[in-house]
Amino acid sequence: MLSAVMSQITLAHEPLDLPLASVWRISRGARTHAYNVLVRLNWTDAHGTTWEGLGEAAPYAYYGELRGTVEAALDAFAPLLGDDPFAINSIMDRLEARVRHNTGAKAAIDMALHDLVGKLLGQPTWRLWGLDPAGGPETSYSIGIDTPSTMAAKAREFADAGWPLLKLKVGTPDDAACVRAVRDAAPHARLVIDANGAWSATEAVARLRQLAPFGIEFVEQPCASENVAGLRFVREQTGLTVIADESCASEEDIPALADAVDGINIKVMKCGGLRRARRMVEVARAHHLKVMCGCLIESSLSLSAAAQLLPLLDFADLDGNLLLKHDPFRGVTVDRGRLGIPTGPGLGVVAVNEQPRP
Amino acid sequence: MLSAVMSQITLAHEPLDLPLASVWRISRGARTHAYNVLVRLNWTDAHGTTWEGLGEAAPYAYYGELRGTVEAALDAFAPLLGDDPFAINSIMDRLEARVRHNTGAKAAIDMALHDLVGKLLGQPTWRLWGLDPAGGPETSYSIGIDTPSTMAAKAREFADAGWPLLKLKVGTPDDAACVRAVRDAAPHARLVIDANGAWSATEAVARLRQLAPFGIEFVEQPCASENVAGLRFVREQTGLTVIADESCASEEDIPALADAVDGINIKVMKCGGLRRARRMVEVARAHHLKVMCGCLIESSLSLSAAAQLLPLLDFADLDGNLLLKHDPFRGVTVDRGRLGIPTGPGLGVVAVNEQPRP
Repeated sequence: MLSAVMSQITLAHEPLDLPLASVWRISRGARTHAYNVLVRLNWTDAHGTTWEGLGEAAPYAYYGELRGTVEAALDAFAPLLGDDPFAINSIMDRLEARVRHNTGAKAAIDMALHDLVGKLLGQPTWRLWGLDPAGGPETSYSIGIDTPSTMAAKAREFADAGWPLLKLKVGTPDDAACVRAVRDAAPHARLVIDANGAWSATEAVARLRQLAPFGIEFVEQPCASENVAGLRFVREQTGLTVIADESCASEEDIPALADAVDGINIKVMKCGGLRRARRMVEVARAHHLKVMCGCLIESSLSLSAAAQLLPLLDFADLDGNLLLKHDPFRGVTVDRGRLGIPTGPGLGVVAVNEQPRP
Repeated sequence: MLSAVMSQITLAHEPLDLPLASVWRISRGARTHAYNVLVRLNWTDAHGTTWEGLGEAAPYAYYGELRGTVEAALDAFAPLLGDDPFAINSIMDRLEARVRHNTGAKAAIDMALHDLVGKLLGQPTWRLWGLDPAGGPETSYSIGIDTPSTMAAKAREFADAGWPLLKLKVGTPDDAACVRAVRDAAPHARLVIDANGAWSATEAVARLRQLAPFGIEFVEQPCASENVAGLRFVREQTGLTVIADESCASEEDIPALADAVDGINIKVMKCGGLRRARRMVEVARAHHLKVMCGCLIESSLSLSAAAQLLPLLDFADLDGNLLLKHDPFRGVTVDRGRLGIPTGPGLGVVAVNEQPRP
């Protein structure tokens, strides 16, 4: 049995610059880099052994975060961590009480605590949650907004390589041409589309009537986040499966969405960590909603945190690390869409000094 | 790190006869014994060490269980346990898929698995859940239906001993006399009442208007379980805090109750174990409901399972072991309502060979 708690948990953070392999474009804009933040939590046990838990924040302006706000929030959180890494629930309650939002900073600490506890117990996080690592859905591969021919080329490349599920970012006047080109290039792939809230409800219905004939498994966030009635309208009018992403930041958003959509997209960076991600799963299930887990542009560190949820999911979109020029961590694996849940203690992540991909 | 999984989990069960110190009466009837079932799960690790997890089922006819049905369900569940005690979620999914209801039998296995995993890791279950054992509400002491003078004597005894919160079972024509007598006997105690669904909605409003002047903190289940509209009506008409118990067996019942009541009463035996009890907490919180945890007539074994939830609760009614003539287990403690969460590994329970109370 581990001895009584002895030392304070200490926090250090450093920039984690992640250049992308190519420009990434969605309906809200384009990016060439992710300016993430790496968090290290350290704690010394009664035997004098120091343990480290790692976390990552992916600041995202849409959720109100920049690298600087993440760093400032982490500095404010550092004195609140206490001396017991097992007490994740009360630690995270203290951070929530300190400041609202700042979910990426909170997520980084939450996942570092899970990593630390898993290492202390010598068990993967998913195992401490009682989950069976077998099964779980395949991840989609996401294709950003681009010309029809570029999107089609990307779709062909991944479909031919054996990826079963492609997620297309939409939300421009060229959507029909893009989706048609992708369908022609990948006739057997399962396709989903994500408008990131680009459309009004009536626009969405018109666009989706154009796109549905190309075979769409579901549509993510057709209307703006606050337009729950719009989501309901789209679902009723098109009969398509509708997944809420931007509309559903935390478990408290779920009851109001339950009769408007078919499922929710959870992101660890959006809800503030694994603790709340698991809450979202439970609340969604109680409302008979499908559960998806997505990501931002992240390294394998925070994607390995999200991957702990895999056995609980219907859909996964955990491919943010595939956009990177090089990934400074190794953890969750992916083989033509099939995710390999990490098997090491905690989040199962190790730092690597990979060469950039050629 | 624990080695790879080696052996099947085996299950044994035996009768756990629990005579009561005195007759226990609620609006549905009276009992002198609880005929519970003790479950032992055994699992041998790669080093040849055999570990045991303990669970308890409290069969309750209202929830569709008798000792014989619990035993039959346990026998059906035994071959489904697999070889990995950590995989609680998929094990419990298999039991749920095998047969509906039978929540006491499922609860016994669920808690034995939690006990086993906690022992394997040398940690209390609440610690593996990330909870802080400090705080948590006091438990009420429950007084069964009896004559006004007997109920008053019991109330005086416990209030004078320092118990802050008394829960009165009601649902007979004598309710007003009983509650008046209790209030006179214990003028400073906080009182809550539980009708166990005895009243129609209009009856409930009339009765509660009689009882409210005696100072009632909340009322539990004034109307029948299926009468959600009745619960809403009682809440609107009386302004009292209404807690759903029989109306709320699992997390899936919560969305429909969310605008009808102020909170829910979770019971491990009602929902089928700690896994689902925790789900109920999360779903209730997402709906801004108060969370209470109650019990049936149970030994300290299954009450210690429920006590793991303590830091998550607003109200506790974990006193079922206090009704027993003797308690074959020792775990959760209680001192004038203040619960002591067990600190040992797993559920923190040990068997005792106590003499019956004189």
